Amino acid sequence: MSRSFDLSVYLVTDRPLCQGRDLLDIVGQAVRGGVSMVQLREKMADTREFVELARALKAMLAPQGVPLLINDRVDVALAAGADGVHVGQGDMHVLDVRRILGPRAILGLSTDTLEQVLEAEGLPVDYYGVGPVFPTSTKTDFSHQPWGIEGLRRLRPRISRPMVGIGGVDVGNAARIVSAGAEGVAVVSAICSAPSPKDAARALAKAVAVGRGS
Amino acid sequence: MSRSFDLSVYLVTDRPLCQGRDLLDIVGQAVRGGVSMVQLREKMADTREFVELARALKAMLAPQGVPLLINDRVDVALAAGADGVHVGQGDMHVLDVRRILGPRAILGLSTDTLEQVLEAEGLPVDYYGVGPVFPTSTKTDFSHQPWGIEGLRRLRPRISRPMVGIGGVDVGNAARIVSAGAEGVAVVSAICSAPSPKDAARALAKAVAVGRGS
Repeated sequence: MSRSFDLSVYLVTDRPLCQGRDLLDIVGQAVRGGVSMVQLREKMADTREFVELARALKAMLAPQGVPLLINDRVDVALAAGADGVHVGQGDMHVLDVRRILGPRAILGLSTDTLEQVLEAEGLPVDYYGVGPVFPTSTKTDFSHQPWGIEGLRRLRPRISRPMVGIGGVDVGNAARIVSAGAEGVAVVSAICSAPSPKDAARALAKAVAVGRGS
Repeated sequence: MSRSFDLSVYLVTDRPLCQGRDLLDIVGQAVRGGVSMVQLREKMADTREFVELARALKAMLAPQGVPLLINDRVDVALAAGADGVHVGQGDMHVLDVRRILGPRAILGLSTDTLEQVLEAEGLPVDYYGVGPVFPTSTKTDFSHQPWGIEGLRRLRPRISRPMVGIGGVDVGNAARIVSAGAEGVAVVSAICSAPSPKDAARALAKAVAVGRGS
Protein backbone atom coordinates (compact mmCIF):
# COMPACT_ATOMS: atom_id res chain seq x y z
CA MET A 1 0.00 0.00 0.00
CA SER A 2 1.26 3.43 -0.87
CA ARG A 3 1.29 6.05 1.80
CA SER A 4 -1.73 8.32 2.01
CA PHE A 5 -1.77 11.48 -0.04
CA ASP A 6 -4.04 14.43 -0.72
CA LEU A 7 -4.77 15.30 -4.34
CA SER A 8 -6.82 18.44 -3.55
CA VAL A 9 -4.54 21.04 -5.15
CA TYR A 10 -1.83 19.32 -7.11
CA LEU A 11 0.88 21.52 -8.57
CA VAL A 12 2.71 20.32 -11.68
CA THR A 13 5.80 22.43 -12.19
CA ASP A 14 6.88 24.05 -15.44
CA ARG A 15 9.92 26.27 -15.24
CA PRO A 16 9.33 28.14 -18.51
CA LEU A 17 5.88 29.11 -17.21
CA CYS A 18 7.43 30.58 -14.07
CA GLN A 19 8.35 33.60 -16.19
CA GLY A 20 11.88 33.93 -14.90
CA ARG A 21 10.98 33.51 -11.25
CA ASP A 22 12.71 30.91 -9.10
CA LEU A 23 10.92 27.56 -9.10
CA LEU A 24 11.62 26.83 -5.45
CA ASP A 25 10.23 30.18 -4.48
CA ILE A 26 7.06 29.61 -6.53
CA VAL A 27 6.53 26.15 -5.03
CA GLY A 28 7.20 27.44 -1.53
CA GLN A 29 4.59 30.17 -1.94
CA ALA A 30 2.13 27.73 -3.47
CA VAL A 31 2.49 25.34 -0.55
CA ARG A 32 1.86 28.16 1.91
CA GLY A 33 -1.31 28.85 -0.07
CA GLY A 34 -2.53 25.27 0.22
CA VAL A 35 -0.97 23.08 -2.46
CA SER A 36 -1.23 19.50 -1.20
CA MET A 37 1.03 17.68 -3.67
CA VAL A 38 3.83 18.64 -6.06
CA GLN A 39 5.00 17.00 -9.24
CA LEU A 40 8.38 18.09 -10.58
CA ARG A 41 8.25 18.06 -14.35
CA GLU A 42 11.47 18.91 -16.17
CA LYS A 43 11.77 18.36 -19.85
CA MET A 44 14.95 20.33 -20.58
CA ALA A 45 17.24 19.84 -17.57
CA ASP A 46 20.07 17.32 -17.72
CA THR A 47 19.93 14.52 -15.16
CA ARG A 48 22.39 16.13 -12.74
CA GLU A 49 20.40 19.36 -12.56
CA PHE A 50 17.10 17.46 -12.37
CA VAL A 51 18.32 15.49 -9.34
CA GLU A 52 19.60 18.63 -7.63
CA LEU A 53 16.30 20.39 -8.17
CA ALA A 54 14.37 17.38 -6.90
CA ARG A 55 16.53 17.22 -3.77
CA ALA A 56 16.03 20.90 -3.06
CA LEU A 57 12.26 20.54 -3.47
CA LYS A 58 12.15 17.41 -1.33
CA ALA A 59 14.05 19.18 1.46
CA MET A 60 11.57 22.04 1.31
CA LEU A 61 8.40 19.92 1.06
CA ALA A 62 9.15 17.16 3.55
CA PRO A 63 8.76 19.35 6.66
CA GLN A 64 5.39 20.51 5.28
CA GLY A 65 4.19 16.96 4.78
CA VAL A 66 3.64 17.65 1.09
CA PRO A 67 4.63 14.69 -1.13
CA LEU A 68 6.97 15.25 -4.05
CA LEU A 69 6.46 13.20 -7.21
CA ILE A 70 8.80 13.17 -10.19
CA ASN A 71 7.48 13.23 -13.72
CA ASP A 72 8.67 10.27 -15.79
CA ARG A 73 12.12 9.78 -14.22
CA VAL A 74 12.23 6.88 -11.78
CA ASP A 75 16.00 7.31 -11.45
CA VAL A 76 15.64 10.92 -10.38
CA ALA A 77 13.00 9.89 -7.84
CA LEU A 78 15.35 7.25 -6.42
CA ALA A 79 18.34 9.58 -6.27
CA ALA A 80 16.39 12.40 -4.63
CA GLY A 81 14.31 10.28 -2.27
CA ALA A 82 11.06 11.56 -3.76
CA ASP A 83 7.73 10.11 -2.65
CA GLY A 84 6.77 8.73 -6.01
CA VAL A 85 6.57 9.10 -9.75
CA HIS A 86 3.96 10.26 -12.21
CA VAL A 87 4.11 8.66 -15.63
CA GLY A 88 2.39 9.22 -18.93
CA GLN A 89 1.44 6.67 -21.53
CA GLY A 90 4.84 6.95 -23.25
CA ASP A 91 6.87 6.80 -20.06
CA MET A 92 8.01 3.70 -18.22
CA HIS A 93 5.25 1.12 -17.82
CA VAL A 94 3.68 1.26 -14.36
CA LEU A 95 4.48 -2.41 -13.77
CA ASP A 96 8.18 -1.60 -14.16
CA VAL A 97 7.88 1.55 -12.08
CA ARG A 98 6.18 -0.32 -9.25
CA ARG A 99 8.72 -3.11 -9.35
CA ILE A 100 11.61 -0.63 -9.13
CA LEU A 101 10.13 1.76 -6.57
CA GLY A 102 8.36 -0.74 -4.34
CA PRO A 103 4.91 -0.82 -2.77
CA ARG A 104 5.16 2.38 -0.73
CA ALA A 105 5.88 4.76 -3.59
CA ILE A 106 3.03 6.94 -4.85
CA LEU A 107 2.43 6.14 -8.50
CA GLY A 108 0.26 8.28 -10.72
CA LEU A 109 -0.68 7.72 -14.34
CA SER A 110 -1.89 10.15 -16.98
CA THR A 111 -4.93 8.87 -18.81
CA ASP A 112 -6.28 10.58 -21.89
CA THR A 113 -9.01 8.10 -22.84
CA LEU A 114 -11.59 5.86 -21.21
CA GLU A 115 -9.76 2.86 -22.62
CA GLN A 116 -6.55 3.92 -20.87
CA VAL A 117 -8.26 4.41 -17.51
CA LEU A 118 -10.04 1.08 -17.68
CA GLU A 119 -6.82 -0.70 -18.62
CA ALA A 120 -5.08 0.98 -15.68
CA GLU A 121 -7.71 -0.38 -13.28
CA GLY A 122 -5.82 -3.67 -13.48
CA LEU A 123 -2.44 -2.07 -12.81
CA PRO A 124 -0.69 -0.99 -9.58
CA VAL A 125 -1.53 2.71 -9.92
CA ASP A 126 -2.51 4.97 -6.98
CA TYR A 127 -4.32 7.74 -8.82
CA TYR A 128 -5.17 8.88 -12.31
CA GLY A 129 -4.38 12.21 -13.86
CA VAL A 130 -7.38 12.57 -16.15
CA GLY A 131 -7.03 15.12 -18.86
CA PRO A 132 -7.34 17.34 -20.51
CA VAL A 133 -10.53 18.35 -18.79
CA PHE A 134 -10.67 21.47 -20.94
CA PRO A 135 -8.67 22.62 -23.96
CA THR A 136 -5.27 23.89 -22.82
CA SER A 137 -2.19 25.49 -24.28
CA THR A 138 0.25 24.06 -21.70
CA LYS A 139 0.40 20.70 -23.38
CA THR A 140 -0.12 20.70 -27.09
CA ASP A 141 0.41 17.00 -27.74
CA PHE A 142 -3.02 15.76 -26.74
CA SER A 143 -4.45 13.70 -29.50
CA HIS A 144 -7.77 13.29 -27.74
CA GLN A 145 -10.85 15.35 -27.06
CA PRO A 146 -11.12 17.06 -23.66
CA TRP A 147 -13.11 15.05 -21.12
CA GLY A 148 -15.27 17.95 -20.02
CA ILE A 149 -17.12 18.02 -16.71
CA GLU A 150 -19.65 15.50 -17.97
CA GLY A 151 -16.90 13.15 -19.06
CA LEU A 152 -15.44 13.15 -15.53
CA ARG A 153 -18.87 12.60 -14.04
CA ARG A 154 -19.51 9.58 -16.25
CA LEU A 155 -16.03 8.22 -15.55
CA ARG A 156 -16.23 8.37 -11.75
CA PRO A 157 -18.49 5.35 -11.09
CA ARG A 158 -16.40 3.19 -13.43
CA ILE A 159 -13.10 3.53 -11.57
CA SER A 160 -11.79 2.47 -8.18
CA ARG A 161 -8.94 4.95 -7.70
CA PRO A 162 -8.98 8.67 -7.01
CA MET A 163 -8.58 10.91 -10.01
CA VAL A 164 -7.31 14.42 -10.39
CA GLY A 165 -8.50 16.59 -13.25
CA ILE A 166 -5.81 18.31 -15.32
CA GLY A 167 -5.79 20.55 -18.36
CA GLY A 168 -7.33 23.98 -18.52
CA VAL A 169 -8.02 24.00 -14.79
CA ASP A 170 -8.44 27.37 -13.08
CA VAL A 171 -10.18 28.84 -10.08
CA GLY A 172 -13.32 29.29 -12.17
CA ASN A 173 -13.83 25.61 -12.95
CA ALA A 174 -12.06 23.76 -10.09
CA ALA A 175 -15.23 23.42 -7.99
CA ARG A 176 -17.13 21.82 -10.88
CA ILE A 177 -14.29 19.35 -11.52
CA VAL A 178 -14.36 18.19 -7.92
CA SER A 179 -18.12 18.21 -7.84
CA ALA A 180 -18.02 15.86 -10.83
CA GLY A 181 -16.07 13.33 -8.78
CA ALA A 182 -12.41 14.29 -9.01
CA GLU A 183 -10.46 14.16 -5.75
CA GLY A 184 -8.72 17.38 -6.71
CA VAL A 185 -7.32 19.50 -9.49
CA ALA A 186 -3.87 19.50 -11.06
CA VAL A 187 -2.64 22.85 -12.29
CA VAL A 188 0.38 24.15 -14.10
CA SER A 189 0.03 27.72 -15.33
CA ALA A 190 -2.78 28.59 -12.89
CA ILE A 191 -0.08 28.62 -10.20
CA CYS A 192 3.29 28.79 -12.00
CA SER A 193 2.28 31.88 -13.98
CA ALA A 194 0.12 33.53 -11.32
CA PRO A 195 1.16 36.97 -10.03
CA SER A 196 0.84 35.48 -6.54
CA PRO A 197 1.25 31.68 -6.51
CA LYS A 198 0.19 31.71 -2.86
CA ASP A 199 -3.08 33.52 -3.53
CA ALA A 200 -3.72 31.33 -6.57
CA ALA A 201 -3.22 28.15 -4.52
CA ARG A 202 -5.42 29.46 -1.76
CA ALA A 203 -8.23 30.30 -4.19
CA LEU A 204 -7.97 26.86 -5.77
CA ALA A 205 -8.06 25.16 -2.36
CA LYS A 206 -11.23 27.09 -1.54
CA ALA A 207 -12.80 26.15 -4.85
CA VAL A 208 -11.99 22.48 -4.24
CA ALA A 209 -13.61 22.71 -0.81
CA VAL A 210 -16.68 24.29 -2.38
CA GLY A 211 -16.80 21.51 -4.99
CA ARG A 212 -16.73 18.86 -2.29
CA GLY A 213 -19.58 20.48 -0.46
CA SER A 214 -21.82 20.81 -3.48
CA MET B 1 33.26 -5.34 -7.04
CA SER B 2 31.73 -5.04 -10.44
CA ARG B 3 31.73 -8.04 -12.71
CA SER B 4 34.59 -8.33 -15.18
CA PHE B 5 34.22 -6.73 -18.58
CA ASP B 6 36.21 -6.31 -21.76
CA LEU B 7 36.59 -2.79 -23.16
CA SER B 8 38.45 -3.84 -26.33
CA VAL B 9 35.87 -2.80 -28.91
CA TYR B 10 33.13 -0.81 -27.25
CA LEU B 11 30.16 0.12 -29.39
CA VAL B 12 28.17 3.23 -28.46
CA THR B 13 24.91 3.23 -30.38
CA ASP B 14 23.44 6.13 -32.31
CA ARG B 15 20.27 5.40 -34.22
CA PRO B 16 20.45 8.42 -36.53
CA LEU B 17 23.94 7.25 -37.61
CA CYS B 18 22.53 3.82 -38.54
CA GLN B 19 21.24 5.42 -41.71
CA GLY B 20 17.82 3.86 -41.59
CA ARG B 21 19.04 0.37 -40.76
CA ASP B 22 17.69 -1.52 -37.76
CA LEU B 23 19.72 -0.91 -34.60
CA LEU B 24 19.37 -4.47 -33.34
CA ASP B 25 20.59 -5.79 -36.64
CA ILE B 26 23.62 -3.46 -36.61
CA VAL B 27 24.52 -4.43 -33.05
CA GLY B 28 24.05 -8.12 -33.79
CA GLN B 29 26.42 -7.91 -36.75
CA ALA B 30 28.91 -5.88 -34.76
CA VAL B 31 28.97 -8.44 -31.97
CA ARG B 32 29.60 -11.21 -34.48
CA GLY B 33 32.53 -9.13 -35.69
CA GLY B 34 34.03 -8.83 -32.22
CA VAL B 35 32.39 -5.98 -30.28
CA SER B 36 33.02 -6.72 -26.59
CA MET B 37 30.70 -4.21 -24.95
CA VAL B 38 27.64 -2.18 -25.98
CA GLN B 39 26.35 1.11 -24.68
CA LEU B 40 22.80 2.03 -25.67
CA ARG B 41 22.60 5.77 -26.13
CA GLU B 42 19.18 7.23 -26.94
CA LYS B 43 18.62 10.93 -26.86
CA MET B 44 15.27 11.13 -28.62
CA ALA B 45 13.27 8.04 -27.57
CA ASP B 46 10.64 8.34 -24.87
CA THR B 47 11.19 6.20 -21.80
CA ARG B 48 8.82 3.40 -22.85
CA GLU B 49 10.58 2.94 -26.18
CA PHE B 50 14.02 3.26 -24.55
CA VAL B 51 13.20 0.44 -22.11
CA GLU B 52 11.84 -1.77 -24.88
CA LEU B 53 14.96 -1.25 -26.97
CA ALA B 54 17.19 -1.95 -23.97
CA ARG B 55 15.33 -5.17 -23.24
CA ALA B 56 15.61 -6.35 -26.82
CA LEU B 57 19.34 -5.62 -26.83
CA LYS B 58 19.86 -7.30 -23.47
CA ALA B 59 18.08 -10.44 -24.69
CA MET B 60 20.33 -10.50 -27.73
CA LEU B 61 23.60 -9.74 -25.94
CA ALA B 62 23.26 -11.87 -22.81
CA PRO B 63 23.78 -15.22 -24.60
CA GLN B 64 26.92 -13.75 -26.21
CA GLY B 65 28.32 -12.68 -22.84
CA VAL B 66 28.50 -9.10 -24.07
CA PRO B 67 27.55 -6.57 -21.37
CA LEU B 68 24.94 -3.92 -22.10
CA LEU B 69 25.33 -0.50 -20.54
CA ILE B 70 22.77 2.28 -20.72
CA ASN B 71 23.78 5.86 -21.36
CA ASP B 72 22.63 8.23 -18.60
CA ARG B 73 19.38 6.50 -17.64
CA VAL B 74 19.67 4.49 -14.44
CA ASP B 75 15.93 3.83 -14.51
CA VAL B 76 16.11 2.28 -17.96
CA ALA B 77 19.03 0.11 -16.82
CA LEU B 78 16.99 -1.10 -13.84
CA ALA B 79 13.87 -1.78 -15.88
CA ALA B 80 15.74 -3.66 -18.61
CA GLY B 81 18.15 -5.53 -16.35
CA ALA B 82 21.17 -3.99 -18.09
CA ASP B 83 24.67 -4.66 -16.77
CA GLY B 84 25.45 -1.08 -15.95
CA VAL B 85 25.31 2.58 -16.83
CA HIS B 86 27.61 5.04 -18.51
CA VAL B 87 27.28 8.63 -17.37
CA GLY B 88 28.70 11.93 -18.48
CA GLN B 89 29.60 14.92 -16.38
CA GLY B 90 26.06 16.35 -16.62
CA ASP B 91 24.32 13.05 -15.90
CA MET B 92 23.55 11.58 -12.50
CA HIS B 93 26.51 11.74 -10.11
CA VAL B 94 28.35 8.40 -9.91
CA LEU B 95 27.87 8.27 -6.15
CA ASP B 96 24.10 8.29 -6.71
CA VAL B 97 24.34 5.82 -9.57
CA ARG B 98 26.41 3.40 -7.50
CA ARG B 99 24.08 3.71 -4.54
CA ILE B 100 21.04 2.93 -6.70
CA LEU B 101 22.55 0.16 -8.86
CA GLY B 102 24.68 -1.55 -6.24
CA PRO B 103 28.24 -2.85 -6.24
CA ARG B 104 27.93 -5.31 -9.12
CA ALA B 105 26.82 -2.87 -11.79
CA ILE B 106 29.39 -1.71 -14.32
CA LEU B 107 29.72 2.05 -14.07
CA GLY B 108 31.55 4.12 -16.66
CA LEU B 109 32.23 7.84 -16.65
CA SER B 110 33.04 10.20 -19.50
CA THR B 111 36.00 12.40 -18.72
CA ASP B 112 36.96 15.31 -20.93
CA THR B 113 39.76 16.79 -18.83
CA LEU B 114 42.62 15.67 -16.61
CA GLU B 115 40.90 17.34 -13.69
CA GLN B 116 37.77 15.23 -14.25
CA VAL B 117 39.73 11.97 -14.42
CA LEU B 118 41.72 12.72 -11.30
CA GLU B 119 38.57 13.65 -9.40
CA ALA B 120 36.97 10.40 -10.55
CA GLU B 121 39.87 8.39 -9.09
CA GLY B 122 38.23 8.91 -5.71
CA LEU B 123 34.81 7.79 -6.93
CA PRO B 124 33.25 4.33 -7.43
CA VAL B 125 33.80 4.20 -11.20
CA ASP B 126 34.85 1.08 -13.12
CA TYR B 127 36.29 2.65 -16.25
CA TYR B 128 36.77 6.00 -17.90
CA GLY B 129 35.63 7.01 -21.33
CA VAL B 130 38.38 9.45 -22.22
CA GLY B 131 37.62 11.76 -25.07
CA PRO B 132 37.64 13.10 -27.51
CA VAL B 133 40.89 11.50 -28.55
CA PHE B 134 40.62 13.19 -31.92
CA PRO B 135 38.29 15.87 -33.27
CA THR B 136 34.92 14.34 -34.10
CA SER B 137 31.62 15.33 -35.58
CA THR B 138 29.52 12.79 -33.63
CA LYS B 139 29.45 14.89 -30.51
CA THR B 140 29.63 18.60 -31.06
CA ASP B 141 29.31 19.71 -27.46
CA PHE B 142 32.92 19.13 -26.40
CA SER B 143 34.24 22.27 -24.84
CA HIS B 144 37.73 20.83 -24.50
CA GLN B 145 40.71 20.09 -26.69
CA PRO B 146 41.16 16.53 -27.96
CA TRP B 147 43.48 14.42 -25.80
CA GLY B 148 45.51 13.12 -28.70
CA ILE B 149 47.61 9.97 -28.49
CA GLU B 150 50.22 11.75 -26.37
CA GLY B 151 47.55 12.95 -23.97
CA LEU B 152 46.41 9.37 -23.37
CA ARG B 153 49.97 8.21 -22.92
CA ARG B 154 50.65 10.86 -20.28
CA LEU B 155 47.33 10.10 -18.55
CA ARG B 156 47.83 6.34 -18.23
CA PRO B 157 50.35 6.28 -15.33
CA ARG B 158 48.24 8.73 -13.35
CA ILE B 159 45.08 6.59 -13.17
CA SER B 160 44.15 3.29 -11.57
CA ARG B 161 41.17 2.25 -13.71
CA PRO B 162 41.00 1.09 -17.31
CA MET B 163 40.20 3.70 -19.89
CA VAL B 164 38.65 3.51 -23.30
CA GLY B 165 39.45 6.13 -25.91
CA ILE B 166 36.48 7.74 -27.66
CA GLY B 167 36.06 10.43 -30.27
CA GLY B 168 37.34 10.22 -33.82
CA VAL B 169 38.32 6.58 -33.39
CA ASP B 170 38.62 4.46 -36.53
CA VAL B 171 40.51 1.43 -37.73
CA GLY B 172 43.41 3.68 -38.71
CA ASN B 173 44.14 4.98 -35.22
CA ALA B 174 42.75 2.28 -32.87
CA ALA B 175 46.10 0.49 -32.51
CA ARG B 176 47.86 3.70 -31.46
CA ILE B 177 45.15 4.46 -28.88
CA VAL B 178 45.61 1.08 -27.27
CA SER B 179 49.37 1.25 -27.58
CA ALA B 180 49.19 4.52 -25.64
CA GLY B 181 47.59 2.71 -22.72
CA ALA B 182 43.86 2.53 -23.40
CA GLU B 183 42.20 -0.81 -22.69
CA GLY B 184 40.17 -0.44 -25.83
CA VAL B 185 38.39 1.91 -28.19
CA ALA B 186 34.84 3.21 -28.11
CA VAL B 187 33.28 3.86 -31.48
CA VAL B 188 30.02 5.25 -32.77
CA SER B 189 30.01 6.00 -36.47
CA ALA B 190 32.93 3.66 -37.25
CA ILE B 191 30.48 0.82 -36.70
CA CYS B 192 26.97 2.34 -36.82
CA SER B 193 27.58 3.95 -40.21
CA ALA B 194 29.83 1.23 -41.66
CA PRO B 195 28.64 -0.59 -44.81
CA SER B 196 29.38 -3.81 -42.92
CA PRO B 197 29.25 -3.35 -39.14
CA LYS B 198 30.62 -6.87 -38.76
CA ASP B 199 33.68 -6.22 -40.91
CA ALA B 200 34.21 -2.87 -39.19
CA ALA B 201 34.10 -4.48 -35.75
CA ARG B 202 36.44 -7.24 -36.85
CA ALA B 203 38.98 -4.75 -38.24
CA LEU B 204 38.81 -2.72 -35.02
CA ALA B 205 39.32 -5.86 -32.91
CA LYS B 206 42.40 -6.70 -34.96
CA ALA B 207 43.76 -3.18 -34.61
CA VAL B 208 43.24 -3.33 -30.83
CA ALA B 209 45.15 -6.64 -30.72
CA VAL B 210 47.96 -5.08 -32.76
CA GLY B 211 48.05 -2.12 -30.37
CA ARG B 212 48.39 -4.42 -27.37
CA GLY B 213 51.27 -6.26 -28.98
CA SER B 214 53.19 -3.15 -29.87
